[in-house]
Amino acid sequence: MGSGRPEEAEAVIIGAPFDSTTSFRPGARFAPQLIRQVSYVLEEYSPELDGSLEEVRFFDAGNLDMPAGAPGPALSLLREAVAELAFKPGLRLFLLGGEHLVTLPAVEAALAFYPDLCVLQFDAHADLRHTYGGEKFSHATVMRRIAEIVGPRRVYQFGIRSGSREEFRFGQENTSFFPYEITGPLETVLPELTGRPLYVTIDIDVVDPGYAPGTGTPEPGGVSAAEMIAVVRRLSALTIIGFDVVEVCPPADHSWTTAVLAAKIVREALIGLGSR
Amino acid sequence: MGSGRPEEAEAVIIGAPFDSTTSFRPGARFAPQLIRQVSYVLEEYSPELDGSLEEVRFFDAGNLDMPAGAPGPALSLLREAVAELAFKPGLRLFLLGGEHLVTLPAVEAALAFYPDLCVLQFDAHADLRHTYGGEKFSHATVMRRIAEIVGPRRVYQFGIRSGSREEFRFGQENTSFFPYEITGPLETVLPELTGRPLYVTIDIDVVDPGYAPGTGTPEPGGVSAAEMIAVVRRLSALTIIGFDVVEVCPPADHSWTTAVLAAKIVREALIGLGSR
Amino acid sequence: MGSGRPEEAEAVIIGAPFDSTTSFRPGARFAPQLIRQVSYVLEEYSPELDGSLEEVRFFDAGNLDMPAGAPGPALSLLREAVAELAFKPGLRLFLLGGEHLVTLPAVEAALAFYPDLCVLQFDAHADLRHTYGGEKFSHATVMRRIAEIVGPRRVYQFGIRSGSREEFRFGQENTSFFPYEITGPLETVLPELTGRPLYVTIDIDVVDPGYAPGTGTPEPGGVSAAEMIAVVRRLSALTIIGFDVVEVCPPADHSWTTAVLAAKIVREALIGLGSR
Amino acid sequence: MGSGRPEEAEAVIIGAPFDSTTSFRPGARFAPQLIRQVSYVLEEYSPELDGSLEEVRFFDAGNLDMPAGAPGPALSLLREAVAELAFKPGLRLFLLGGEHLVTLPAVEAALAFYPDLCVLQFDAHADLRHTYGGEKFSHATVMRRIAEIVGPRRVYQFGIRSGSREEFRFGQENTSFFPYEITGPLETVLPELTGRPLYVTIDIDVVDPGYAPGTGTPEPGGVSAAEMIAVVRRLSALTIIGFDVVEVCPPADHSWTTAVLAAKIVREALIGLGSR
Amino acid sequence: MGSGRPEEAEAVIIGAPFDSTTSFRPGARFAPQLIRQVSYVLEEYSPELDGSLEEVRFFDAGNLDMPAGAPGPALSLLREAVAELAFKPGLRLFLLGGEHLVTLPAVEAALAFYPDLCVLQFDAHADLRHTYGGEKFSHATVMRRIAEIVGPRRVYQFGIRSGSREEFRFGQENTSFFPYEITGPLETVLPELTGRPLYVTIDIDVVDPGYAPGTGTPEPGGVSAAEMIAVVRRLSALTIIGFDVVEVCPPADHSWTTAVLAAKIVREALIGLGSR
Amino acid sequence: MGSGRPEEAEAVIIGAPFDSTTSFRPGARFAPQLIRQVSYVLEEYSPELDGSLEEVRFFDAGNLDMPAGAPGPALSLLREAVAELAFKPGLRLFLLGGEHLVTLPAVEAALAFYPDLCVLQFDAHADLRHTYGGEKFSHATVMRRIAEIVGPRRVYQFGIRSGSREEFRFGQENTSFFPYEITGPLETVLPELTGRPLYVTIDIDVVDPGYAPGTGTPEPGGVSAAEMIAVVRRLSALTIIGFDVVEVCPPADHSWTTAVLAAKIVREALIGLGSR
Repeated sequence: MGSGRPEEAEAVIIGAPFDSTTSFRPGARFAPQLIRQVSYVLEEYSPELDGSLEEVRFFDAGNLDMPAGAPGPALSLLREAVAELAFKPGLRLFLLGGEHLVTLPAVEAALAFYPDLCVLQFDAHADLRHTYGGEKFSHATVMRRIAEIVGPRRVYQFGIRSGSREEFRFGQENTSFFPYEITGPLETVLPELTGRPLYVTIDIDVVDPGYAPGTGTPEPGGVSAAEMIAVVRRLSALTIIGFDVVEVCPPADHSWTTAVLAAKIVREALIGLGSR
Repeated sequence: MGSGRPEEAEAVIIGAPFDSTTSFRPGARFAPQLIRQVSYVLEEYSPELDGSLEEVRFFDAGNLDMPAGAPGPALSLLREAVAELAFKPGLRLFLLGGEHLVTLPAVEAALAFYPDLCVLQFDAHADLRHTYGGEKFSHATVMRRIAEIVGPRRVYQFGIRSGSREEFRFGQENTSFFPYEITGPLETVLPELTGRPLYVTIDIDVVDPGYAPGTGTPEPGGVSAAEMIAVVRRLSALTIIGFDVVEVCPPADHSWTTAVLAAKIVREALIGLGSR
Repeated sequence: MGSGRPEEAEAVIIGAPFDSTTSFRPGARFAPQLIRQVSYVLEEYSPELDGSLEEVRFFDAGNLDMPAGAPGPALSLLREAVAELAFKPGLRLFLLGGEHLVTLPAVEAALAFYPDLCVLQFDAHADLRHTYGGEKFSHATVMRRIAEIVGPRRVYQFGIRSGSREEFRFGQENTSFFPYEITGPLETVLPELTGRPLYVTIDIDVVDPGYAPGTGTPEPGGVSAAEMIAVVRRLSALTIIGFDVVEVCPPADHSWTTAVLAAKIVREALIGLGSR
Repeated sequence: MGSGRPEEAEAVIIGAPFDSTTSFRPGARFAPQLIRQVSYVLEEYSPELDGSLEEVRFFDAGNLDMPAGAPGPALSLLREAVAELAFKPGLRLFLLGGEHLVTLPAVEAALAFYPDLCVLQFDAHADLRHTYGGEKFSHATVMRRIAEIVGPRRVYQFGIRSGSREEFRFGQENTSFFPYEITGPLETVLPELTGRPLYVTIDIDVVDPGYAPGTGTPEPGGVSAAEMIAVVRRLSALTIIGFDVVEVCPPADHSWTTAVLAAKIVREALIGLGSR
Repeated sequence: MGSGRPEEAEAVIIGAPFDSTTSFRPGARFAPQLIRQVSYVLEEYSPELDGSLEEVRFFDAGNLDMPAGAPGPALSLLREAVAELAFKPGLRLFLLGGEHLVTLPAVEAALAFYPDLCVLQFDAHADLRHTYGGEKFSHATVMRRIAEIVGPRRVYQFGIRSGSREEFRFGQENTSFFPYEITGPLETVLPELTGRPLYVTIDIDVVDPGYAPGTGTPEPGGVSAAEMIAVVRRLSALTIIGFDVVEVCPPADHSWTTAVLAAKIVREALIGLGSR
Repeated sequence: MGSGRPEEAEAVIIGAPFDSTTSFRPGARFAPQLIRQVSYVLEEYSPELDGSLEEVRFFDAGNLDMPAGAPGPALSLLREAVAELAFKPGLRLFLLGGEHLVTLPAVEAALAFYPDLCVLQFDAHADLRHTYGGEKFSHATVMRRIAEIVGPRRVYQFGIRSGSREEFRFGQENTSFFPYEITGPLETVLPELTGRPLYVTIDIDVVDPGYAPGTGTPEPGGVSAAEMIAVVRRLSALTIIGFDVVEVCPPADHSWTTAVLAAKIVREALIGLGSR
């Protein structure tokens, strides 16, 4: 996945192989590599969008060398890399996680460039805890941190079906909170999002584990792969300046179907850039 | 999964690691252990039920030490354990199989306490054979044995999509038989079940193998995980005195998604106790 | 799967363990063996069709010994075996692939017997390339080759959701091309197909990888297993003289659910013969 | 593995797919099938023995249809099949387990034909318990049962490295007991065994789990695959009238190397018949 | 594995499910659980030591709840737990990792009780880096940290076959450094170790990946499982006050053979306590 | 694995992802990718050779894009790539297979540059068939083809333990044939090989499947990983101008240990260049 020259690119792909705060099943660090590898099974052409990767000028910057352990150094490194490589005029970020915490530095870097940024999260989990295991920076707190910096009303949460009572209460009171469903709520808010700079983060576990078994914290009862792909195509009507897919966990993705799904989501999002 | 003091419990969890009559792919013996292990990925709180495991007084009695081979000794042991540990006033059984045959001694013990018991079965297979491979006690005969002791009309079968012609005929003539579907038929019979003591047995293979690959005899064409979870929540309106999930087969559950589904079903059922 | 005497058979099963042109994940060569092995989990009786395998006179001719490497010799061998074993009056072929290229010699042999043959393809991929990697004979070109010999309008393609722009254009202009969907378009064309000799080829990847992870080139976003099985039952109204299931890939089918799905598809198709 | 006409055979292969008393990891029921399948990777020719399977007249009688559950019926069925198919003059049995308990009916049938039979066991476990879990017939008691019928001194045990203190005491006092090692003790007893009718049973777990991971109760610290194969070749100097390989467990044999090892052991034993 | 009352115990087992600094393949956090589970395949009796677990008074304190991410909090928690639970007079620690970094707080706690402590390390890797990825506390620096607190000459390193040039130089100059081999060097130093309080740490990757594939950083070319087990038995002549097995990685231990090896090592060490 | 500038390189690494003639278990096409990926677990430094990859000037040219199916085009492409990229003065080839047939075009290209080339093969299988399945170019005929072009006496075969009677006869009469063993025979011929241009081909299945389970045709009874690594270090005394490792099969290498072994073999060979 990926080709082209950096200086002409309209999109840059960065891999963020980090999973140190994963609380259950680690391994998301191997996702950027596997997503690229399996993308070979997909055509360059998307019949639904009638567009092709060949018509998108994107550049794959490879994976960052993120140290394991305490998240601080790894997140700083990612923030700086994103600030340097992406978020120039006309250039969008496509980030391959890694665990969900990698979204935080990407949003921080985006916010410096787009102060009126909104964030769209598709996820089974609210990720709205104030702290988790005593730590402020965790896959379980990442959207709370993001809500703090972009403003809670600017965080749109779709498909959430797991969290503590406190997280659900916080979401209902503070974020644009749409639990359980995706397609319907998205149609509702599309008008208010049109034309605004958006960062989209897709935790692959928003899709039911039947379609996406290879993830760290599978949560039964989600949407189908087909619905999620259709949602991504629908997003092509919007102004996406950053996009990530996180929480693909290769050691649990025995048939690679979760990684292929992630690759297809990225393909549709990349091709969707040109359809606007 | 599980904590609390036995003497105050309103529910007791028992693991039944037995799979000796499994005719195709054994391994359900490892299910109680894996279901408990993976339950760690789930929150205590159920947003749909707006209740939490913390608000349920349940006690995990651990696994029984069931011998492999002939089913007689293992079933007797289970019957006695259930009679001793569960089915006291205000105390419900939550049984983790094991193969489906473990439901028989649990129902026998329940029947001694609740003579007007009805049994609700959610399953891909009718399990209504008179004998199987010459044996009366088998995962393939278990519901026939149960129909003999609780009375056939008191067995409600949902979602059945596999069986011999004789089993289907027996079901249509003798049990409350609802093949292929679950949600619709359940709504139909909810009124007649309300207020009666019920034992619920969920063979995880009622769910399509896409969502529940880790089972001994996968049968393509079932309901989604989301539908089954919603059905369990709907059951919280009823008077459930016993509940089991059987036929999770860890050696075929490479990504643990079947075990997580079973754990979520048990969580919703436990929390549902309090919502009545 | 399979028993009976060849001379009285109304259907013959042949395994085609070939996968040498597979471009991504090989292993379909092991599918005929695994499909037979797992068919043990299925009942002989189909409740939806109210028929049983015991009422079908079919014969399992085993697997051909197809050499790996260049496809020429293997395809010749298959063409000759099919011509010799099947396509006698009243005898239908049931072919277990192998990769999709094995359909070509089977159709060639069928065409010699049924000059007005139509071919129904259920597949995620168009398989309509003129050449692939410089080769004319490949899993990616097989339907183009078939369109050349049966006539393009006689190729009916259902559920196609992947291909190059050229393949989609070719399909839209030349074949009976029904992308993305199956059930609706099939109902539309059933009248025109009734009574004509038909060869049905099912690439298992037409089903979403959630239900069929064990395949060489998984393509997220397909139909459910339940829909595909229902479609096969619907086909029993037609005059099927040849039927294959291809692209099951056992090394990627860790829980055997894809192979069980293929076995159930074959069971319903075999039993469907008698329901006409 | 296997071909030829039964009436001329000097060896008959029988599969015994039974594992119901397995106490830890079941699945040995799938071994006969997998051993045959993977035997394809082996040449017919053994360079060390300078002989070929083509020069041995053996017949594969396939697998018995052994019911799961209580061992009684399955063992009776096996005893009768072995008595009928094997142990005619000049005809040897090659049995593919299944769990170790299948050796008992085979030895019973052999004993009827060869009253002065000796049994050679290669195993990590003594299998000398009087009862196990309250049962007399179990993989853990099988050699005790055999010692009772052939006479304890006529049981030769090699490589034993696991058992209870009582089993070790029983072995040291009653059987020809050679713990930990194989090659040295075998050389010692070869003279006394020469010319006597022998039944050889190889529990694959005698080999270290490094070489044979696919077994039900792996016991670290065993011999190498190379040593075990050499031992089998050495046995060709003896009069073997029955031979089995048991406890290969395919669900734990992810790379099929244990099954290939079993297949090679059987190949060397079969070819060794002709070298005497 | 484990039973008994804490107040009478001569050994306490603690699980340390931590792997956050793992640089390649995470998952060691699941090892304490799997080692206990698979210990069921082993007998209580060790024939080589002629002793039984039943004769050892040990207590299993379960697993600590160690947070993922930065190692500081997890290591503090472990240090305190060990200090509280173990290292009382007559009480030894048996620690189940987790990654190798968990050895550090255990040694720190031991050192407070036994100021003249020596540490014996069996490992493929020197783990002697000053820092790794900029961090002082890592699986790759753990023995350097330990050398700093117990004194480098008091660290005995056996079987080391991987490290940087600097690590090898440091080892050769500062520790009791025995690369590549175990048995020979151990015999050499046994006299000088006799009677001194010893902490033994076994990184399972000291064993060749052929015998121990389930580890985070497999290094081909190590000792056999049999040799390592024999070494552990030899250690029973010494005064071991702490003992750990680390770096078993269940997600890579598909047949559980690595976990069984770890369990057997712990069994022999526990039983060895009584043989002194 | 790999870095440096091509124009200064003393070694070039090329991946050959081809496996179309594999007769049993395909998947070697994925080996070059996996070997590079897992090489991350290894240090740059080899303590036994006291040398480091940092001191070798090598360049990784990546993988060739080899078409599946008939071997002709893929082999031509490889021959041309090798001729262009390697075999300049002072430049050696390191080839990562792929199946064993990829060795043929590499030797052809080498022979054009070094007419007095000798070939050293380490392999479980003789690969000396004249044809296989009717084909001249196959993994089973590759050494016969090579013997035809370099001259049979110039092919040195070590460790061969499988083949037809004809292949063993051909080897004994025509090649420098050393079955079963490696280290001893290699020492014998080292003097006659010294100073001559050598191509070394290592089929990973020469190592016992216990250490190298991830291969297409495992053959029990081989050497240990440690012995093979020591042999590679011994080869550093010779003038190696080409070196390959073939037949690593990732789909069967569940714990990646075979790929790590291949990576370590390549590391030692690369570092060994500098020690001459």
